[in-house]
Amino acid sequence: MAADNLTAVLYKVNDLRLEQRPIPEPDDDQVLLQMACVGICGSDVHYLVEGRIGDFVVNEPMIIGHEASGIVAKVGKNVKHLREGDRVAIEPGVPCRKCRFCREGRYNLCADMVFCATPPTHGNLARYYVHAADFCYKLPDHVSLEEGALLEPLSVGVHACRRAGVALGSTVLITGAGPIGLVTLITAKAMGAAKVLITDIVDHRLGIAKELGADYTFLSKVGQDEHETVKSFHSLLAGPPDITIDCSGAEANIRLAILATKSGGVVVLVGLGAPEQKIPLVNATIREVDIRGIFRYANDYPIALSMVASGAAKVKQLITHNFSLEDTLKAFEVAKTGVGNPIKVMIHPLQDKV
Amino acid sequence: MAADNLTAVLYKVNDLRLEQRPIPEPDDDQVLLQMACVGICGSDVHYLVEGRIGDFVVNEPMIIGHEASGIVAKVGKNVKHLREGDRVAIEPGVPCRKCRFCREGRYNLCADMVFCATPPTHGNLARYYVHAADFCYKLPDHVSLEEGALLEPLSVGVHACRRAGVALGSTVLITGAGPIGLVTLITAKAMGAAKVLITDIVDHRLGIAKELGADYTFLSKVGQDEHETVKSFHSLLAGPPDITIDCSGAEANIRLAILATKSGGVVVLVGLGAPEQKIPLVNATIREVDIRGIFRYANDYPIALSMVASGAAKVKQLITHNFSLEDTLKAFEVAKTGVGNPIKVMIHPLQDKV
Amino acid sequence: MAADNLTAVLYKVNDLRLEQRPIPEPDDDQVLLQMACVGICGSDVHYLVEGRIGDFVVNEPMIIGHEASGIVAKVGKNVKHLREGDRVAIEPGVPCRKCRFCREGRYNLCADMVFCATPPTHGNLARYYVHAADFCYKLPDHVSLEEGALLEPLSVGVHACRRAGVALGSTVLITGAGPIGLVTLITAKAMGAAKVLITDIVDHRLGIAKELGADYTFLSKVGQDEHETVKSFHSLLAGPPDITIDCSGAEANIRLAILATKSGGVVVLVGLGAPEQKIPLVNATIREVDIRGIFRYANDYPIALSMVASGAAKVKQLITHNFSLEDTLKAFEVAKTGVGNPIKVMIHPLQDKV
Amino acid sequence: MAADNLTAVLYKVNDLRLEQRPIPEPDDDQVLLQMACVGICGSDVHYLVEGRIGDFVVNEPMIIGHEASGIVAKVGKNVKHLREGDRVAIEPGVPCRKCRFCREGRYNLCADMVFCATPPTHGNLARYYVHAADFCYKLPDHVSLEEGALLEPLSVGVHACRRAGVALGSTVLITGAGPIGLVTLITAKAMGAAKVLITDIVDHRLGIAKELGADYTFLSKVGQDEHETVKSFHSLLAGPPDITIDCSGAEANIRLAILATKSGGVVVLVGLGAPEQKIPLVNATIREVDIRGIFRYANDYPIALSMVASGAAKVKQLITHNFSLEDTLKAFEVAKTGVGNPIKVMIHPLQDKV
Repeated sequence: MAADNLTAVLYKVNDLRLEQRPIPEPDDDQVLLQMACVGICGSDVHYLVEGRIGDFVVNEPMIIGHEASGIVAKVGKNVKHLREGDRVAIEPGVPCRKCRFCREGRYNLCADMVFCATPPTHGNLARYYVHAADFCYKLPDHVSLEEGALLEPLSVGVHACRRAGVALGSTVLITGAGPIGLVTLITAKAMGAAKVLITDIVDHRLGIAKELGADYTFLSKVGQDEHETVKSFHSLLAGPPDITIDCSGAEANIRLAILATKSGGVVVLVGLGAPEQKIPLVNATIREVDIRGIFRYANDYPIALSMVASGAAKVKQLITHNFSLEDTLKAFEVAKTGVGNPIKVMIHPLQDKV
Repeated sequence: MAADNLTAVLYKVNDLRLEQRPIPEPDDDQVLLQMACVGICGSDVHYLVEGRIGDFVVNEPMIIGHEASGIVAKVGKNVKHLREGDRVAIEPGVPCRKCRFCREGRYNLCADMVFCATPPTHGNLARYYVHAADFCYKLPDHVSLEEGALLEPLSVGVHACRRAGVALGSTVLITGAGPIGLVTLITAKAMGAAKVLITDIVDHRLGIAKELGADYTFLSKVGQDEHETVKSFHSLLAGPPDITIDCSGAEANIRLAILATKSGGVVVLVGLGAPEQKIPLVNATIREVDIRGIFRYANDYPIALSMVASGAAKVKQLITHNFSLEDTLKAFEVAKTGVGNPIKVMIHPLQDKV
Repeated sequence: MAADNLTAVLYKVNDLRLEQRPIPEPDDDQVLLQMACVGICGSDVHYLVEGRIGDFVVNEPMIIGHEASGIVAKVGKNVKHLREGDRVAIEPGVPCRKCRFCREGRYNLCADMVFCATPPTHGNLARYYVHAADFCYKLPDHVSLEEGALLEPLSVGVHACRRAGVALGSTVLITGAGPIGLVTLITAKAMGAAKVLITDIVDHRLGIAKELGADYTFLSKVGQDEHETVKSFHSLLAGPPDITIDCSGAEANIRLAILATKSGGVVVLVGLGAPEQKIPLVNATIREVDIRGIFRYANDYPIALSMVASGAAKVKQLITHNFSLEDTLKAFEVAKTGVGNPIKVMIHPLQDKV
Repeated sequence: MAADNLTAVLYKVNDLRLEQRPIPEPDDDQVLLQMACVGICGSDVHYLVEGRIGDFVVNEPMIIGHEASGIVAKVGKNVKHLREGDRVAIEPGVPCRKCRFCREGRYNLCADMVFCATPPTHGNLARYYVHAADFCYKLPDHVSLEEGALLEPLSVGVHACRRAGVALGSTVLITGAGPIGLVTLITAKAMGAAKVLITDIVDHRLGIAKELGADYTFLSKVGQDEHETVKSFHSLLAGPPDITIDCSGAEANIRLAILATKSGGVVVLVGLGAPEQKIPLVNATIREVDIRGIFRYANDYPIALSMVASGAAKVKQLITHNFSLEDTLKAFEVAKTGVGNPIKVMIHPLQDKV
């Protein structure tokens, strides 16, 4: 095995470095992976720029990266379902497997979760990386490694839509058409949503949303009238949405979500904004509009994989920019500045040139 | 039949009058009821003092009262399940039976609901009153007419606990120990909640809560430290509650509800306070603490009746004051001023003297 | 209005007659419909040939037909959402709207259901027919009247898949590829099922299933080995199905459904066969494979309509034969004998020639 | 630590021996337990008498026992929540923690489950035993070790009632009043069931059921008329039960369960009888009566413990016979022959004399 294990390490705010690290050894239940594709997520950029997200602070140098796929290079002795050469998508969080959340099927809430590139846990933007074998999902031949890496954001969309209860015939409003808004859109349509309306303040994103299957789009404007906006939504959808999924975190959108959703409907919060928000709570209460947040995903990777494998989710077109591992700093520069209207920036540790 | 139909009519703010009204005739699907017991609800007092609740405004004289039981005096020709002399609890809202909410089992959200003593619909604080027969529930012999009237607030507690998903072994926090907090407590215990902690700012109510089965009580104070209070709750319950049900509407309590509830738990909002509230939404989102409001009840009366009939709910001790119909103004005075620490004030149109 | 109200009346076994009947008047909550399309269902043929289905016996002459669409010819005075000329799909059963089933959202179980062409209730294979307005669904302009009539069988498929819990990524086995098996297939795919395997003993039907989106087909043979057949299913699907939906009623298939479905999965019974069946119940019990039957549909028409309107369900190709009302006897002959491999036979009362 | 580790080993059919075995060492995630109470279950007797249950065959000598409690004697180094001297209830099955069933919260269906006294896994009827620490539940001071051991059968009742959806106000029929029928009864009442009717062919058991809270009892007779029996059930309950839980496995009872349950209700199968049974499947289908089996339990121990701790479940009275470990063969003799009408026979390895 090559001794090269070039690795992207975040030292502190705006100090991301490429350096060689030793190739790790898998334990009995792990696999060693030759990393293939690693997407850049908003949270990666956030750690780069702010050095923290909430209580998670980069105090020690941390390997970045968590939206990833790879090729199995070595298997631990207990591993039965994978072998050398298998192409896999990597679910980046490994829970404790013992607490009540783990036992009850909501392992995303496990307090002892070990999650790639969430301090103090290292990520996987490197040539080599070891991971729990059972959180690696073998890709069918016709699913690409790029798609494998995209299962990560797609799983967020799947989790959001499942928590929302999107069903055949649902009318869905999605506020925010960034990468998560777009995977939520893809998932809602794959679940049989009859009509999806998606909003954003950036017109370019709405164009992509249209291509990805949005039935209606709405260009939001700062300072728009709340009452009029709700009326516009209802007019476009010929009635109130059954479900609204906010993928922006903006208070203005969360307010609209509550006001616009039909009585007895559901608002799902995916985007994270200001810790405290002022919302029309009596309106939600007396109309029994439920408000549900989501945190990452649990048991969603297999579904996301099946969507891509069956062709129900065309996620590849989310990738707008590609870089080699050597060009990681350039890749982050694009993700950070937004120059060139990136949706998803993908890094390819397996390829010399991209 | 006696010509006497003394009736309590709210003309405008603080103008409640007793006057004779014609005895109505039931249509084919209705029954005429000789009213037996009518409790005073916070909303009745609100209409008396403010003349409105939100968009519901008392523009025309309106008969007050909606927590009621009665005796069947006459049956419409299509009515099969009731006959003259039957003692019944009256579910005060009759929905359209045709819209999607009605068809899907959530008739409390029906936009065309006709609900007693919600303008412009008359209530039933009178000697005689007609009502849809299928919304009258026959009381078994051992259930009293007082208990029949109390099914109304009890149904709110049942609806709240069902929406909350209270289950065998649940740990429940209830904020607010007024009549609705107390019926919620009774219901949670009847559903098998292992531990219920109830809070209030009035010590007297906590004493009643103890008698009704609360495992723990907590006296809230204005301006108490949020973080410390959450710690106190967790200490009393030996961990965070699975479910918190707010029966106060106070922003301080709703904030506590979110912060105190376990990850993956549920907050149910029953109390109505300020239309807009500032809440720790990111905390709720990333811990997947669901927020669900309730509006009245749907399909809860039969459950409430079964609780009382089986002895699981001892609601009678909620009644602290009794009045005759003639003393309606005195009854409302007690409910309005709170003199004598009333929990539930009950009016008895059937009895001359109480 | 034309005095012509040619009507198909089933007098007794194999005695179906076309005769003139008076045009009925809608009551306040009804509409008069000029009938457009009426499909022939297996139950219609059953009544024709046997004169009964279970306890429902044709004792009096009964108008046949219940899979129908029409054009509003006259509206009752309380009807707000429809007007003359509207094209509508007709949900053929009208429940009592008062019992607990109706109130709780499961109106298909209402004991007082009035259902077209189920003795003693008349059906709607005629020029004119009156129906409860709220069980008539206005068709968008781009949905045809043929598709409107097909919402009836499609709603059975929707109900089956909803009871089964078909979801994004599900693996589904459907046993039986008659009209109901095919609409179930269409629905499962529209809900995002990753893989659907459908079986039948008639090869021709499997070809149609392929065209309608089946991922895999399996030609069943009488007397096939149970164990081997399960292995074949698992081999085709690369594992056991999450859900099996039997649309045949055959004991052999119901046994396979239980044995083949994954532990913790669901078997839904749609087809009706012998009243009593011998099944491997311990196998189902210890693997927690749930067995759920379905009866018609409830709250499924709006979903079925949205599927057709959005293009998710291409049902039109189910229609293999068309007849005018005058040729009703010929239409039933085709449905009865199966000559010409009919899937759905459609009668068109609105058109002179078809 | 004493060298005494007297152990009950089943060698083959009717060959149960007491012998000394080495005291095992806990691994890092385990605890060593000094066994306190071990109940005898019907399955233990079955292995003794038949040497097998279905595909599970006693080919090698196997330590018997799985309904148990103990005292922590030594803790593995990773164990945080327990320490020496803690009194614990032992959930006897430890799943793989990795498969989809484990991740989705249904670990009882895990194919790699390691379950006490299910061949080839040893049980815990011995002085000492090691077990996964996270499947040991610390008992509060006021919960006895006898009650701790009874959490095992109680968890079966909890699982059955949760799968059944027993809720506040439910009407429940339980067929079979053996130990599992009785814990199901206790659980149903603790969940707020309004009325529980329990049946058995042994009158003595019905008496105990009455003491444990049964509202109604019914003495079944072999060959009783099916139709008349259903009428009797409906008469006692004043209508059909919402839920029927069969704890007998008898075909006659499973048939009654389906026929008696209300439309839209649920039948849960707990008892295991003949592998194949003939049941009225069309009746279940057209009335949408769901049939659900259960297998052991998952996430039910914490609930069972809370029931006992709160006083909601009085299980202690199920114990009718007590023996020392040295008298194990006598204990099994009682359980096997039924002499003295045993409900639960308890063995006490911690005590010299009982």
